[in-house]
Amino acid sequence: MKWCRFERDGRPSYGIVEGDRITAVDGLPWGEHTTTTATYALAKSKLLIPTVPGTFFCAGINYAEHVRLMAAKRGAEPDYPKRAEIGYRANNALCAHDEPIVKPRESGPNFQYEGELVAVFGKRCRNATKENALDHVFGWTIGNDVSERDWQKSDRTMYRSKNADTFKPMGPWIETDVNLDAMVTTIRLNGKVVDEFKTNNMIFDAPTFIAEVSRYCTIVPGDVMWLGTDLVPVNMTVGDVCEIDITGIGTLRNKVVAEA
Amino acid sequence: MKWCRFERDGRPSYGIVEGDRITAVDGLPWGEHTTTTATYALAKSKLLIPTVPGTFFCAGINYAEHVRLMAAKRGAEPDYPKRAEIGYRANNALCAHDEPIVKPRESGPNFQYEGELVAVFGKRCRNATKENALDHVFGWTIGNDVSERDWQKSDRTMYRSKNADTFKPMGPWIETDVNLDAMVTTIRLNGKVVDEFKTNNMIFDAPTFIAEVSRYCTIVPGDVMWLGTDLVPVNMTVGDVCEIDITGIGTLRNKVVAEA
Repeated sequence: MKWCRFERDGRPSYGIVEGDRITAVDGLPWGEHTTTTATYALAKSKLLIPTVPGTFFCAGINYAEHVRLMAAKRGAEPDYPKRAEIGYRANNALCAHDEPIVKPRESGPNFQYEGELVAVFGKRCRNATKENALDHVFGWTIGNDVSERDWQKSDRTMYRSKNADTFKPMGPWIETDVNLDAMVTTIRLNGKVVDEFKTNNMIFDAPTFIAEVSRYCTIVPGDVMWLGTDLVPVNMTVGDVCEIDITGIGTLRNKVVAEA
Repeated sequence: MKWCRFERDGRPSYGIVEGDRITAVDGLPWGEHTTTTATYALAKSKLLIPTVPGTFFCAGINYAEHVRLMAAKRGAEPDYPKRAEIGYRANNALCAHDEPIVKPRESGPNFQYEGELVAVFGKRCRNATKENALDHVFGWTIGNDVSERDWQKSDRTMYRSKNADTFKPMGPWIETDVNLDAMVTTIRLNGKVVDEFKTNNMIFDAPTFIAEVSRYCTIVPGDVMWLGTDLVPVNMTVGDVCEIDITGIGTLRNKVVAEA
């Protein structure tokens, strides 16, 4: 089932996407809710980010080939992560499907997408086991971990390299029924495939991350966990349209525009 | 004026603290609100964290003496930050005044407080100048950036060293009228003063951080920015009561308990 969050008569509402229609739902997908009789044309609706997370977890480095290739690019030895240590991103950076990625005036040419699978939590989670970890996940969406690589190198933190406004597109919706092992992540720039990788070919899979994080941290409904990207992204320039497609979920599409 | 958030008839509510009473307010302090006629005894009320931030900004390293002393402890040269680069903390770690700090079973002896001044935002803020930065701050509260130093050294991220559940006490309330330059931060363990420093003796002050962050990131009402700590904290053990007092705001008090 596909759950979206959309602008309904000027206010955020959840809805269920079936074909080209959205059926509005009052309440939260992971809480009490009532399906209404109101339906809207998907094509005419403004989709919103599918959740506003309390905590925005992000795995960062999580694919072996990505570690190897990025290290080779720097002329360094690959440094594979030894444990599933989670990082964070900032809510201010979130933007929805079809909203623009705004390239800051001061940013340089090494401005890149990162296509990521995102777990959206539906149940409170503390001390999960790898076996029951996925019981706490409500569904899955897509994230684009947009990165300014020169800032990422020069700065002590990632406040502007990864958390500037619009640097975290997420959407288009949450899919509850997936087959993680059958998923392929395909990234297109202006319609041309630039990257394609097996989504679940992670160093630490979602259950491992959820079990490790929840040994120390409570995860609550509406939280998200972004799970990293593979390969070596290429640069995006103003005017480019970036599409991230994950089998069974859909396509997250955003256009790069210049900062006014 | 002191604004608190408290449990009112089982639900979170804002209130104004005057003497030993809380007057309940419907709505948000920084938005439309109505002062009610309902008052409650402060001593009998359960205080909640004064805001649930959308983005939880945290300066990290921001006092010269702290950098110098912490480096000396490690036998290293001090590495002073060159720019006001903000970091992040996680909402799951927040806890209120008088709630326990839970020391994880697996944590070691180097378990420490960090007393910090916290800016709470009341106005949307993008591209602030140093001159108008404080116009966006609604008021000020106190944070305790609890840290497990061995995890901080061993881990690639700060997910458990600084973001485990209850590691981020914040409160007791928001004070809107302060004199930053007159503030002193005093930290007591079990009633004994362990640290005392001039609160505003920062490497980068609040206006500098707000201007730098808002060049790239939109800060919204309810967001918080923690501004770092000075000196070298000492270890806390189970049973210790940590009090952080900042002139003009009040005292944030939390007891350390063992994980069940």
